Amino acid sequence: MPRLHALAALLAAALVLPLAAAEPDATPAPRTTQQVLDASGPSDWRTPDPDRTLYMDLEAGRVVIELAPAFAPEHVANILVLAREGFWDGTSVYRSHDNFVVQFGDADADDPAKARPFGNAKTQLPAEFERSAQGLAFHTLPDRDGWAPEVGFADGFPAGREGADGQAWMAHCYGALGAGRNLEADSSIGAELYVVTGQSPRQLDRNITLVGRVIRGMDLLAAIPRGPEPMGIYEKPAQRTPIRAITLAATLPEAQRERIEVLRTDTATFDAFVESRRNRRDAFYKRPSGHVDLCNIAIPTRTPDEGED
Amino acid sequence: MPRLHALAALLAAALVLPLAAAEPDATPAPRTTQQVLDASGPSDWRTPDPDRTLYMDLEAGRVVIELAPAFAPEHVANILVLAREGFWDGTSVYRSHDNFVVQFGDADADDPAKARPFGNAKTQLPAEFERSAQGLAFHTLPDRDGWAPEVGFADGFPAGREGADGQAWMAHCYGALGAGRNLEADSSIGAELYVVTGQSPRQLDRNITLVGRVIRGMDLLAAIPRGPEPMGIYEKPAQRTPIRAITLAATLPEAQRERIEVLRTDTATFDAFVESRRNRRDAFYKRPSGHVDLCNIAIPTRTPDEGED
Repeated sequence: MPRLHALAALLAAALVLPLAAAEPDATPAPRTTQQVLDASGPSDWRTPDPDRTLYMDLEAGRVVIELAPAFAPEHVANILVLAREGFWDGTSVYRSHDNFVVQFGDADADDPAKARPFGNAKTQLPAEFERSAQGLAFHTLPDRDGWAPEVGFADGFPAGREGADGQAWMAHCYGALGAGRNLEADSSIGAELYVVTGQSPRQLDRNITLVGRVIRGMDLLAAIPRGPEPMGIYEKPAQRTPIRAITLAATLPEAQRERIEVLRTDTATFDAFVESRRNRRDAFYKRPSGHVDLCNIAIPTRTPDEGED
Repeated sequence: MPRLHALAALLAAALVLPLAAAEPDATPAPRTTQQVLDASGPSDWRTPDPDRTLYMDLEAGRVVIELAPAFAPEHVANILVLAREGFWDGTSVYRSHDNFVVQFGDADADDPAKARPFGNAKTQLPAEFERSAQGLAFHTLPDRDGWAPEVGFADGFPAGREGADGQAWMAHCYGALGAGRNLEADSSIGAELYVVTGQSPRQLDRNITLVGRVIRGMDLLAAIPRGPEPMGIYEKPAQRTPIRAITLAATLPEAQRERIEVLRTDTATFDAFVESRRNRRDAFYKRPSGHVDLCNIAIPTRTPDEGED
């Protein structure tokens, strides 16, 4: 009997299937995700702007973050000040809450004697839970969910919208980066941040300011051991995961920046990619689902000349 | 400025809010999750049957699994044979695929010279991707999703259904335990298993046999470092996470069994619990979402006399 490297067969199959023969005058044949990506062109990919890309260096490796000024301009501006001033260098991930978030920043922020100074950063910001949908290019998904009237991608980020004249907001998908706050809506300044590591907590959408998204390195954050205290907190400093530094990519010489490209979310290739996730066409699947949730769409990244991550 | 233990405020607030005063003749006041659980009675909880409960012992601790014979009777019967014969004792978690699954069993299963014998277990089983909904008590959720015509809970497991006369199936939520297979639908026997550790891969529903669910210890499985090879595989034995043993609870003396209770999913208390997840009522939330996805409902567990986990 064949032995099982089981689910493995799923992606393995996708990798070995030959490309479907071209049928220029017919409806395009359904394609697997791998086929869609193999057929993508240079214009289907974008390079994140180094002026809004952060590198978070852990002992285990580097996490790459793309900030979202289109959604949270004031928070992102403050985060850029904090990064330039080295605010997070030597801080830690002091919370890992299973199936929810990791949280990081100054673990001593509550202690006036130890708290780090904010330097030139602002200490009061407005809540940026949502923004006007006007002026925001929104690429709507074919499928809906129960969390928002409309879902799709805007500026490369998963998002919800209530019509073109209503409000729009980033969605709490895996890898979303948010600004921790107290009970007051306007109590976040971007110094204390969390990243979603579990089932998308969409109930937080429009309740907290999201500021960006991890585009590489989620494998490092998601594997941080869960904290022993309630909500995954680590009270003992030695248990926390040290953050060597959080650095703005633009402050490094170009040769030292990460080489990374992200699939654009506003192209025909992206539509084909989404369709390949809605209906899995590789041999493993017996019943394509005909649906995909917003947060089940992991936006592909790649290293130029090396292929997808 | 108040400092931030941020998202923390969410649950902290839930814990300190006083119970709403009883209003016997009015519509019940909306309650927080903590209030619902505090008001639950003994009959709202159940003790999993030791004849279908497995303990998976890792160096980091114990994972407790509840099997689902109502959905996969042949696979569960085979798994019980394998557990009684110690099939998994000394095997490993040899795959940890970020935002997807961990997979475990006999890493040498593909090598005839090293593969473990199956003993009295069957080596061929039918696919059990779904079953008739008839005869299966199904507690439907108020909300829908795009993956299934109907979602809810059956026999304590998250599930989908296509009407009372159609098919029903378990859903790939966080913690779901499935039987790895090859490309052939009937190529699983339950010896090689996976657990969902990422955003619910509901596209696998009705495409693979789910056999149960982790009810305690997901924090241990989800934090296993991601494997370096494609699909999170660990090729080097030393990198794998050893499994000391997988033991059927019923084979241990009662005093050595885990004390654990699970919230029933077919009660008025459960309905109130779901409502408390649909509309978060603690002070942190400014805009309750009025919706919850099936896989965002984590069924509470508790240790008798010690409270919720």
